[in-house]
Amino acid sequence: MVEISALELSALLGGELLGDPDCRITRIGPLLGADATTASFLSNPRYATQLAQSAAGCVLVAPAMREAAAQRRSAIVCPDPYLAFARLTQWWAARVRRPAVPGVHATAVVDVSAAVHETASIGPLVVIGADARIGARAVIGPHCAIGEAAVIGEDTRLHARVVFGDRCIVGARGIVHSGAVIGADGFGFAPDQGRWEKIEQLGAVRIGDDVEIGANTCIDRGALDDTVLEDGVKLDNLVQIAHNVHVGAHTAMAGCVGVAGSARIGRHCTVGGGAIVLGHLELADHVHISAATVVSRSIHKPGQYSGVFPFDDNASWEKNAATLRQLHALRDRLRALEKKTP
Amino acid sequence: MVEISALELSALLGGELLGDPDCRITRIGPLLGADATTASFLSNPRYATQLAQSAAGCVLVAPAMREAAAQRRSAIVCPDPYLAFARLTQWWAARVRRPAVPGVHATAVVDVSAAVHETASIGPLVVIGADARIGARAVIGPHCAIGEAAVIGEDTRLHARVVFGDRCIVGARGIVHSGAVIGADGFGFAPDQGRWEKIEQLGAVRIGDDVEIGANTCIDRGALDDTVLEDGVKLDNLVQIAHNVHVGAHTAMAGCVGVAGSARIGRHCTVGGGAIVLGHLELADHVHISAATVVSRSIHKPGQYSGVFPFDDNASWEKNAATLRQLHALRDRLRALEKKTP
Amino acid sequence: MVEISALELSALLGGELLGDPDCRITRIGPLLGADATTASFLSNPRYATQLAQSAAGCVLVAPAMREAAAQRRSAIVCPDPYLAFARLTQWWAARVRRPAVPGVHATAVVDVSAAVHETASIGPLVVIGADARIGARAVIGPHCAIGEAAVIGEDTRLHARVVFGDRCIVGARGIVHSGAVIGADGFGFAPDQGRWEKIEQLGAVRIGDDVEIGANTCIDRGALDDTVLEDGVKLDNLVQIAHNVHVGAHTAMAGCVGVAGSARIGRHCTVGGGAIVLGHLELADHVHISAATVVSRSIHKPGQYSGVFPFDDNASWEKNAATLRQLHALRDRLRALEKKTP
Repeated sequence: MVEISALELSALLGGELLGDPDCRITRIGPLLGADATTASFLSNPRYATQLAQSAAGCVLVAPAMREAAAQRRSAIVCPDPYLAFARLTQWWAARVRRPAVPGVHATAVVDVSAAVHETASIGPLVVIGADARIGARAVIGPHCAIGEAAVIGEDTRLHARVVFGDRCIVGARGIVHSGAVIGADGFGFAPDQGRWEKIEQLGAVRIGDDVEIGANTCIDRGALDDTVLEDGVKLDNLVQIAHNVHVGAHTAMAGCVGVAGSARIGRHCTVGGGAIVLGHLELADHVHISAATVVSRSIHKPGQYSGVFPFDDNASWEKNAATLRQLHALRDRLRALEKKTP
Repeated sequence: MVEISALELSALLGGELLGDPDCRITRIGPLLGADATTASFLSNPRYATQLAQSAAGCVLVAPAMREAAAQRRSAIVCPDPYLAFARLTQWWAARVRRPAVPGVHATAVVDVSAAVHETASIGPLVVIGADARIGARAVIGPHCAIGEAAVIGEDTRLHARVVFGDRCIVGARGIVHSGAVIGADGFGFAPDQGRWEKIEQLGAVRIGDDVEIGANTCIDRGALDDTVLEDGVKLDNLVQIAHNVHVGAHTAMAGCVGVAGSARIGRHCTVGGGAIVLGHLELADHVHISAATVVSRSIHKPGQYSGVFPFDDNASWEKNAATLRQLHALRDRLRALEKKTP
Repeated sequence: MVEISALELSALLGGELLGDPDCRITRIGPLLGADATTASFLSNPRYATQLAQSAAGCVLVAPAMREAAAQRRSAIVCPDPYLAFARLTQWWAARVRRPAVPGVHATAVVDVSAAVHETASIGPLVVIGADARIGARAVIGPHCAIGEAAVIGEDTRLHARVVFGDRCIVGARGIVHSGAVIGADGFGFAPDQGRWEKIEQLGAVRIGDDVEIGANTCIDRGALDDTVLEDGVKLDNLVQIAHNVHVGAHTAMAGCVGVAGSARIGRHCTVGGGAIVLGHLELADHVHISAATVVSRSIHKPGQYSGVFPFDDNASWEKNAATLRQLHALRDRLRALEKKTP
């Protein structure tokens, strides 16, 4: 069991301790459902009423909540409680999770020409191809398949059954979740009298440092050049990144996003769940796409962009949708009226 | 080969037999394409003309179709032919499918601390982590990876290469299709000066009894509390369930649905294919979402909800879409006209 | 290293050689970034300015670009440079990729009743079920699971960890990318007093020749009849094909498309990324669906069809979307005005 005092917590996270320094914490959790041994946090002032209701032994709060927090058993005032809480989860996870065992599991199938660092952990039933390189302290989960000449950076973790294709590269401290497929062929065909002639995909995937890739997400290899994810990119589950896409540093995409071929997404962008970005477009840095929006042309200016049909009860939607199909005609009728009306 | 008489069928399914009790059935199939040894069903009166055209030896029909069915070689009248047919497919499947062999395949890698019931079937190349528990008659397909302290209930079947994460739980009689990833990390990060700081996901996934989960579907573990699927939930393929989502009992979601974090979906809901439910929303019981609809606010009233741009030939769509971008201005022009017109 | 002269290239691809026949090519790549040993192509006249800027040693061009190409070190004039380039990528790939080794890897688990052709290559940790048949020169990647009585055609390649279900069939020269699940259960349930009763899925999946299926794509088995993909179908990643769908020959679907049950898609269709086709619809041959369009009724006429909410900056979108919810009422107000205005 993990145990930490409020005092130790404040030292770890760097805030100002209020109340009982000996308050003993053995859990971390949300304000609601917390008990006297729970450390929790309040980052959004909207949930301030939860603070009063919560039994949490220690709460991380922003300076604005100092007064309310001072009434409690213990609290830590810090400039960004959400960030402090993120760091606390990392500290916690390192204590509750079993560390990976360095070495190659007896059932793994590792090509003799592969270079596996002695501190790396290769799980059961992993397959590693010729000339692959696995960095120091990397963890390769069960059933992963690492292609020929692929490179896995230091401290990067592949969860169970990731496919990491030939010649693809991921940097340091990456996380790839189960079922992700890095380096499948891009979808490229030349039409030939009603049939499709395959364009072999000869590029690879290059992924920077500190990148996280979600479960069952696919990142295709480039046709000729590489598909690129820069440092700090975060992709959620079931995301599709087509061939030759370039994703700028620290851009994050939520689940079910699809990015078509050769799109170029800037740095520090966010793409909401289920959004689609069409091919060969450019998105500037700091562009934010709302969930389920279809981006059909390039965006050169930072900002929030949206495009979703507002949902309604079915009967209302049907009426509006039917009328929408005559919208252009309605506009013409309006114009005609305007001309008639002095 | 499976063989059953019309009489035995009526006893099995509990309806009233019309016609030849000895009619011999060796296939089940749709009305069209049926032959004299096929059992079929008619549940939708829209397809009544297919009944006359069908050569099926025995047909399950509703009481309303009794007269037409009496003309046939054999028929079974039952209150809900679709439900009766569902039960028949189950009886049939149990006879045509090879039963799983109890025991642990020689190539499986099972931690010594895992508790595998002696009647469970563990397929080839399965990996089972420390302290995991596999219930009676459970079937674990090839290449599955079961995490530490995970629990698989009685009679639950995991098809090939399901990843079932640490501490996640599934109840009895569940079915998880190939490629599903249960318990990957939720997508949680705290922003820190343009970078993303990972919030370790310390919750798990708790799944009730009689739940079915489709191929390559992802259900993320909770951040602090658990992600929950109640009893009888049915999810199709390529569905994304984010961290801390709660899905009420007997709710069904079709393929490619995405549900964002902390959404709370009621009981007996249906969500059509490709729909997106945004985070932190609540859907009441008996809410039905049409395919591809984006649910952007909570729904407190049962009913059918929709929100899809009606498709059209491309030229018409382009005109209407372009006009839609001026819709608010059109409204203002209409108002101005209304003021001018006495 | 692969090396070819411009003269050999022209013989291989069948065009007219201009310039230096001895120009030595060791790379293929896009016009931008090319060097004197790179073969490139120009198929889209829009990129003609790139031709002048490119250092490529040899460029494949259409007859219309003959004059510009004649100024270069070497060029090949051919009727369809994109198609010629596709063929060149195939020739190239055959030289740079390590050929699969015939035979069964020592770690594969192959049922004794399976028939594996002696020229087929079965990778490490593959599982092959009873009575399965693997054709000549087929390549089965690591961690694939081939079901009972499944059939893999000649020269077909399954990349790593494809699940290919019981009794499913794929023809010759197919490619199935990693993580694809062929033959999971269709999503079929009969409602029974608020619960869902499973309809066992007794059909299979039948796939023709020259079909390519993307990473993590799912193709469900039919309920009673089979799900069918005809010859030459190309599916991108994360596509969902539900039970009993029929996809006509040479139809292509981009990433994240969902096709609901029993839809019947014609031949030579294209479906853009993220589009949804509802169940039981028919699409004629040569129908083209734009990305992210929801097809909610059958389409009987060839052509391009679209239906996407045009995205905008968030503030503009909000105004237009809010007004859209009153569109039908606006139409009525317009009508009333029209009646008043002589």
